[in-house]
Amino acid sequence: MVQSSDRYQSRGGQTSGIRRRQDPVVYPAALPPGEHALSEHQLAGYRRNGFVFLKNFFPEDEVALLLGEAQRMVADAALRQSEEAITEPGSDAVRSFFRVHQLSALYGRLAADARLLDIACQILGDEVYVHQSRLNLKPGFDGKEFYWHSDFETWHVEDGMPRMRAVSCIILLTENNEFNGPLMLIPGSHRHYVVCTGETPEDHYKSSLKQQDIGVPDHDSLSFLVAQGGIRAPKGPAGSVVFFDCNTMHGSGSNLSPFPRSNLFFVYNAVSNALQMPVCGLKPRPEFIATQQDFTPLRRETGPLKPVVR
Amino acid sequence: MVQSSDRYQSRGGQTSGIRRRQDPVVYPAALPPGEHALSEHQLAGYRRNGFVFLKNFFPEDEVALLLGEAQRMVADAALRQSEEAITEPGSDAVRSFFRVHQLSALYGRLAADARLLDIACQILGDEVYVHQSRLNLKPGFDGKEFYWHSDFETWHVEDGMPRMRAVSCIILLTENNEFNGPLMLIPGSHRHYVVCTGETPEDHYKSSLKQQDIGVPDHDSLSFLVAQGGIRAPKGPAGSVVFFDCNTMHGSGSNLSPFPRSNLFFVYNAVSNALQMPVCGLKPRPEFIATQQDFTPLRRETGPLKPVVR
Repeated sequence: MVQSSDRYQSRGGQTSGIRRRQDPVVYPAALPPGEHALSEHQLAGYRRNGFVFLKNFFPEDEVALLLGEAQRMVADAALRQSEEAITEPGSDAVRSFFRVHQLSALYGRLAADARLLDIACQILGDEVYVHQSRLNLKPGFDGKEFYWHSDFETWHVEDGMPRMRAVSCIILLTENNEFNGPLMLIPGSHRHYVVCTGETPEDHYKSSLKQQDIGVPDHDSLSFLVAQGGIRAPKGPAGSVVFFDCNTMHGSGSNLSPFPRSNLFFVYNAVSNALQMPVCGLKPRPEFIATQQDFTPLRRETGPLKPVVR
Repeated sequence: MVQSSDRYQSRGGQTSGIRRRQDPVVYPAALPPGEHALSEHQLAGYRRNGFVFLKNFFPEDEVALLLGEAQRMVADAALRQSEEAITEPGSDAVRSFFRVHQLSALYGRLAADARLLDIACQILGDEVYVHQSRLNLKPGFDGKEFYWHSDFETWHVEDGMPRMRAVSCIILLTENNEFNGPLMLIPGSHRHYVVCTGETPEDHYKSSLKQQDIGVPDHDSLSFLVAQGGIRAPKGPAGSVVFFDCNTMHGSGSNLSPFPRSNLFFVYNAVSNALQMPVCGLKPRPEFIATQQDFTPLRRETGPLKPVVR
């Protein structure tokens, strides 16, 4: 079901190609910027490139807490059996846990941390809620790749996110280096919308979260974007943070190194951009993948992260 | 069939682990070094790291010839059907052509080029012949990874190469960069021999050339080697060359970028190290993978590469 009024049609009979973005990247400020907002220089870089890399953002003791929590979750057999656990294609190894801001009190606290929230609100010019959260684990030796994609394309088509007014935040829990399959971004790609071909199948998420075949950009469009902006792979120690626009084309390679690559992924969506019905006409994806029940804005939490008493 | 006198036992009931190399890396010179031999400094680096990277080794016009020949071979439908053509797992795309120094007059001439031969003879302290040659193609967008391996382990077990007295030479036909799955090497790994578990199946090469599961080093050994020497991925323009020891642990990641990564691969073996019977007790691999018929030393060819008249 293609709605002709849809600014960001994709799949459902569309031919592949590139359209212009029809939304701002940085939204007008509704309120004065918070204490932890980006500098003008950083914000200009974000507007231009579609991402900003903040090296050594969290101090070591807080990073140790966050990594410890990830290790606890991976060791939790019941959690590995839950629907929130996505395994690698052809194996039982966990690739991602979803909804971690609700599964983990520590990660819930982190999602609302003023140091992150001030930036998300500054970029989106609105109050925000968590549209999706996940813990991504790319083990050493055989961590698998994520092919290039715009998250917004999927969120729009499969979740009914109306406009490009969301920002993703990745918190590195392990060092990202040249060899462990770091996040790769195409600078400037957020200003283009790559229309994808194909029809979304029912329950697409059950396979697409392991390996995506539908909603995948074509080679010509990717070549165009890379010719314009190149590829960048931010590298840095655990505790570094990347904010990137919901429409920035990104992916990551395989990890043959002995170094695991783990990160946390929070998607902040403007409350004014809350989900409507999926554009593809199918039933919405489950709540653990795309928040639909509760768009209450996050309340800013300040001070360092502390161990959660169990 | 494991021979107890074998210095480099592997598979066939062995448990995984690391043994010391029992052969020199750089052999005593039999003759004065040739005109194009490595400098003492370069040779010392090769001895220490197990490889040497020679940036911008061939001039642009010769590189263009070599790349054109690769494109001609890929476009040759009959050649793509030959046994020398190895396809990607699960696809018809060519991953490698073998025996290219005989399939292509230009590549045959290149294999004997004094600029390469002088270095191979200097390192091995002997005359040399081509044990194996191939053209490796890693296409953009979906080039697949090669997992870590020591070539010598396979050549010893499956081809009957007696000692570590061979050197591989890679000629970059396209730029190798951070994003197109460049060759990765573990410096210093050539001084260790990683014994692999498993039994070699009959006709192992038919699957192993696509994706190797037997003769694969274990995680603990790889972690040890990387902890000692780290990982290096030489990057540079087309025409650059890497020489690496037959026992240097290496691999390469996937290629998600739009940039194809193509290279030529010649293995020079000392004539005094010519093949015997495979250690695994199976029949030898085909001639196009491992030269067994003719160990005649290469004769040095000088002057620039020229187009081959067809």
